[in-house]
Amino acid sequence: MPELRKDPISGRWVIISVERGKRPTDFKIRVPVKKGGFCAFCNGNEHTTPPEILAVRHVLSDPDTPGWSVRVVPNKFPALNIESQLNKVNEGIFEKMDGVGAHEVIIESPEHNFTLSTMPLKSVEDTLSVFYKRISELKKDNRFKYVLVFKNEGDDAGATLEHTHSQLIALPIVPKLVDEEINNSRQYYKKNEKCIFCDIIRQETADRTRVISENENFISLAPYAPRSPFETWILPKNHESRFSPDGKFPLLAQILQKTLKQIDKVLTLPPYNMMIHISPFEEELNKYYHWHIEIKPKLTKVAGFEWGSSFYINPTPPEEAARFMRETEI
Amino acid sequence: MPELRKDPISGRWVIISVERGKRPTDFKIRVPVKKGGFCAFCNGNEHTTPPEILAVRHVLSDPDTPGWSVRVVPNKFPALNIESQLNKVNEGIFEKMDGVGAHEVIIESPEHNFTLSTMPLKSVEDTLSVFYKRISELKKDNRFKYVLVFKNEGDDAGATLEHTHSQLIALPIVPKLVDEEINNSRQYYKKNEKCIFCDIIRQETADRTRVISENENFISLAPYAPRSPFETWILPKNHESRFSPDGKFPLLAQILQKTLKQIDKVLTLPPYNMMIHISPFEEELNKYYHWHIEIKPKLTKVAGFEWGSSFYINPTPPEEAARFMRETEI
Repeated sequence: MPELRKDPISGRWVIISVERGKRPTDFKIRVPVKKGGFCAFCNGNEHTTPPEILAVRHVLSDPDTPGWSVRVVPNKFPALNIESQLNKVNEGIFEKMDGVGAHEVIIESPEHNFTLSTMPLKSVEDTLSVFYKRISELKKDNRFKYVLVFKNEGDDAGATLEHTHSQLIALPIVPKLVDEEINNSRQYYKKNEKCIFCDIIRQETADRTRVISENENFISLAPYAPRSPFETWILPKNHESRFSPDGKFPLLAQILQKTLKQIDKVLTLPPYNMMIHISPFEEELNKYYHWHIEIKPKLTKVAGFEWGSSFYINPTPPEEAARFMRETEI
Repeated sequence: MPELRKDPISGRWVIISVERGKRPTDFKIRVPVKKGGFCAFCNGNEHTTPPEILAVRHVLSDPDTPGWSVRVVPNKFPALNIESQLNKVNEGIFEKMDGVGAHEVIIESPEHNFTLSTMPLKSVEDTLSVFYKRISELKKDNRFKYVLVFKNEGDDAGATLEHTHSQLIALPIVPKLVDEEINNSRQYYKKNEKCIFCDIIRQETADRTRVISENENFISLAPYAPRSPFETWILPKNHESRFSPDGKFPLLAQILQKTLKQIDKVLTLPPYNMMIHISPFEEELNKYYHWHIEIKPKLTKVAGFEWGSSFYINPTPPEEAARFMRETEI
């Protein structure tokens, strides 16, 4: 019997195939093949990208030259334009505004063939620090209400360049999905005087079936109502509404890289998307929302049913996914 | 300068690349190749599907034998199970229920190589009548609150069988997306005492830039804030909250087939998803919601930004898409 499960944070329902759940080997995953050729993100080609915004680099090296380990550049084909004001306009019944925003690329390593799961742990930590630093900078621009940091790994997950990188988009609007999560979390807090994420972590830690791994500060788990197979969340164990280092990025880098290694091993290098969910700038310090990382391997297709309902059909129960992840040797 | 546009019905924002919008030839569309082989949906193989639920067939033919033109069968691998009750259960902080629902397949033609755009118009009309009849039947089952009719055409849009077919899923919950559309429409009605869809049709009809085609009863248009390039909606011109024939299915079949022919011609047989948005059963007759068909060619990928924000980036302005559609000769 399939199950209908509700994600209490977003309010969305998913259909979970409980009985004949799909195992990792049931998914057709195309082994990624690096095409090679000229790459603007590689060491030595720094002059072919727009000028860098930020880099972790050797003290004696100059901007836009080799000597860096993580580098942030503007997206050459930005979805939004930084040089603009909001200019809200009504077109009759409709509303629009200029597409103001920042769109940046975080090149996580000068090495073409590294990924977040194979690069030195220090580079993962530096990447997280760079995320934090760019979010902090963009927050000062009062046109922006939110920054979404995300990563598309692999062609099928939407990556257009194969060199390992993340992206961020600063937005003049709090995205609908974030707004819904914030509202539901706020309501839960009003009713229970507790953060819903803290309560989930408490329940999952006691129950264990969906916990994948943990360290002193962080926990990785398969959420109760995941949209897709092997969806995995990483959360700080204690309440934190704001994504910030506070000395914890080494442990975050450790659990993030471990989780990605587990995903790579269990699913044989699947394409995936990774998103960092943070609180909107205007309510960055709050008691109800808990920042977290969501990782979604791209194993299923969004089709008519999903587009017409925002229901998702997930053929792998999260309890099974968590077990595969826990039991894999990395 | 890109634009941020808001869809007033769902409340979602999209980013539209206005300046260097993608033209039809900019999309990489894989020409569909029929694999052939045994097909359970073909004429003569009726005994290999589960027993038929409904068919448009010759009066002298028996169920589950040849002689039909449209045929409805249960999905052999249903996402939800018809033989069950709701059984709501709380698991601590979480909620779930048994996956009760109907999942049916509407085989639109006995001919393997037809599509909705190439089959005889009468078959399109019969398919619409069958949608209506199945919705009407499932409505009588008081476990169900909504039926979503949808179609996945082509492998990349999620079709697992190449023989032309649609599907329907009856659900014990009104899907989140429908609920949001209904709520927003209801609010608009409260404020303006007018249906938001009727107002949109009025504005679009006066403006013309996004109108694709129309006949006596229906209009096809590119919505103001489409999630993806060449997204097209078909709506009844006059207010209708309930999907019902009232003698109008010949005209609906005509505009639907014309629209799909235009899409096939402009984009060279793209994969697409089609969804029929109807009012939930409990408020089937209302003044605020207007049933309609949404057609979404599958030309872009859902990636990290979309998953993390529910924003969509659309590289083709709807005004351009509508112009290509209008100007194509079919």
